Amino acid sequence: MLRLHDYLDSGNGYKVRFLLRLLGTPFELVPVDILRGESRTEEFLNKNPNGRIPVLEFSDGRCLWESNAILFHLASDTPYFPPDAWERAQVMQWLFFEQYSHEPNVATSRFWVRHTEITPERRTRLDEKIRLGHAALGVMDRHLDARTFFVGERLSIADIALYAYTHVADEAGFELERYPAIERWLCRVRDTPGYAPITSADTAPEQGSSARPA
Amino acid sequence: MLRLHDYLDSGNGYKVRFLLRLLGTPFELVPVDILRGESRTEEFLNKNPNGRIPVLEFSDGRCLWESNAILFHLASDTPYFPPDAWERAQVMQWLFFEQYSHEPNVATSRFWVRHTEITPERRTRLDEKIRLGHAALGVMDRHLDARTFFVGERLSIADIALYAYTHVADEAGFELERYPAIERWLCRVRDTPGYAPITSADTAPEQGSSARPA
Repeated sequence: MLRLHDYLDSGNGYKVRFLLRLLGTPFELVPVDILRGESRTEEFLNKNPNGRIPVLEFSDGRCLWESNAILFHLASDTPYFPPDAWERAQVMQWLFFEQYSHEPNVATSRFWVRHTEITPERRTRLDEKIRLGHAALGVMDRHLDARTFFVGERLSIADIALYAYTHVADEAGFELERYPAIERWLCRVRDTPGYAPITSADTAPEQGSSARPA
Repeated sequence: MLRLHDYLDSGNGYKVRFLLRLLGTPFELVPVDILRGESRTEEFLNKNPNGRIPVLEFSDGRCLWESNAILFHLASDTPYFPPDAWERAQVMQWLFFEQYSHEPNVATSRFWVRHTEITPERRTRLDEKIRLGHAALGVMDRHLDARTFFVGERLSIADIALYAYTHVADEAGFELERYPAIERWLCRVRDTPGYAPITSADTAPEQGSSARPA
């Protein structure tokens, strides 16, 4: 069985849990307390030398890290990674946007606000991250204004990746009501059959929700 | 013909130029002076709402942005993106590592050192980026210690992406002699037929270097 080394509050981990549930793929959740340094132990670094969760471990011991690479791998040959080459390119574009322009600002702000002391030096950097996070949210809001999902008008791993930290951006102080197209899209993603919230530790899909969409 | 909106000194742009030359795909280079705000004009934002180079524009006007998404798109069905599913997953892993753990530290340090005044506040942040950049280089060096290339023992877009800013990391003060496996790998990549340096504006491959490898 797949083992997911993960920290339940992490949006990066949540992306993978979200997709595994949609696919109806059972997995074992192996908790890694990143606040206590458990992603920096020698044992963990043997799984991911970069010392980050999530890590997907296969039954033969192979490990894959980087949340969006895990999404790509799991979604290949499923409806969550479209078959069309141009749509695939756009999915990848949004996955890299998420890791470069969104996550380092929206997710890091959320982490700092929840888990660290906001010193004056950190306040300055937090303000910059909030500004850059709003820039990323603005790009998303304009893109979604006339669309239902990010690519090809159906849910893909681009939506799953961007949903993960956007839907909890308010925890960092981002006022999502400034982004009506994002708010409508968040509701659409949340309505997906098989949806579970970020803190859910469910590892097996509910009866009847495990079918891959046609 | 493909148009590449790009800034010649950018490693992110260089990745795309590198691959286009390897593939023997002619392209028009459209210079964008990011230091003069040319990636923030309304005209440019219509091509990439995130305001960053490189942007690949197709003859029908479609635009693709995010350097690693462009690499993925151009390399599909070529030897630079392996056919094996597990190798593909690992290529993606290293592409996301590049954009999350490497580029924001190695490339941003290089940009600051070359183009900005190092104020005391920036000095503190630069020191942190140098530390994190060394961490990323350490991960790469250990991975390359017993390998010729990042994935599957042959050049892929993972190597092209990581080469772009690693081979100029000394311009930010990173001492690459601390990483012997990286230095050997840099030589291997540089030896690729059709190789051109980062500042080359060549847009058409040399005669005899345009063939795709078998």
